[in-house]
Amino acid sequence: MMKINIADKFGLFSDYWSPKIVGEINDSYVKLVKLKGEFVWHSHENEDEMFLVVKGRLLIKLRDGDIRIGEGEFFIVPKGVEHMPVADDEVHVLLLEPKTTLNTGNVRNERTVEAEWI
Amino acid sequence: MMKINIADKFGLFSDYWSPKIVGEINDSYVKLVKLKGEFVWHSHENEDEMFLVVKGRLLIKLRDGDIRIGEGEFFIVPKGVEHMPVADDEVHVLLLEPKTTLNTGNVRNERTVEAEWI
Repeated sequence: MMKINIADKFGLFSDYWSPKIVGEINDSYVKLVKLKGEFVWHSHENEDEMFLVVKGRLLIKLRDGDIRIGEGEFFIVPKGVEHMPVADDEVHVLLLEPKTTLNTGNVRNERTVEAEWI
Repeated sequence: MMKINIADKFGLFSDYWSPKIVGEINDSYVKLVKLKGEFVWHSHENEDEMFLVVKGRLLIKLRDGDIRIGEGEFFIVPKGVEHMPVADDEVHVLLLEPKTTLNTGNVRNERTVEAEWI
């Protein structure tokens, strides 16, 4: 049981698209991730996924439109909805998602990573 | 499906200790709450509860110590752990907790409220 300083945790890593676990709440993890560039289109069959932008601006492409998320804003991608995060510049994001969530969802490719605690 | 601006939502209400629902993710709600003063000692038998401080400073008293949470920090109170939030000055908090969570946990008194969507 300890408090977590989000900025301090972001200072511990520099790789992109590789979520780090910083908290456990019920059957979900709180993760931090740095994004830059384009990800891949994917969906999570059984998991809603929350993106809270801590720094920068994030674009989440959906099949029927774009969602632009600034600092202090969040967006929840419902289960089953295809999405592709895009970060023109570096973005720091707090994620909340069930422990079962794979970063690339229904896709497994070279972007797929297992999240680790920091 | 729309993005939520946290500061805008905080501008919609002014009452203390009355969490407002601003998002739904799997079996949990994202809530916003303004705190000022002392709450009551309580615990949540089955639910971990996340406090993320958006503005101000929050003290969470535990039976075996105090946790002080500043802006950009969060703390997860594990299920079953007695706690009492204390805010010397107004604090804005983002809560994440299962939909079943009652604000006063195992206690029902005049501080007990049902959260509503804003």
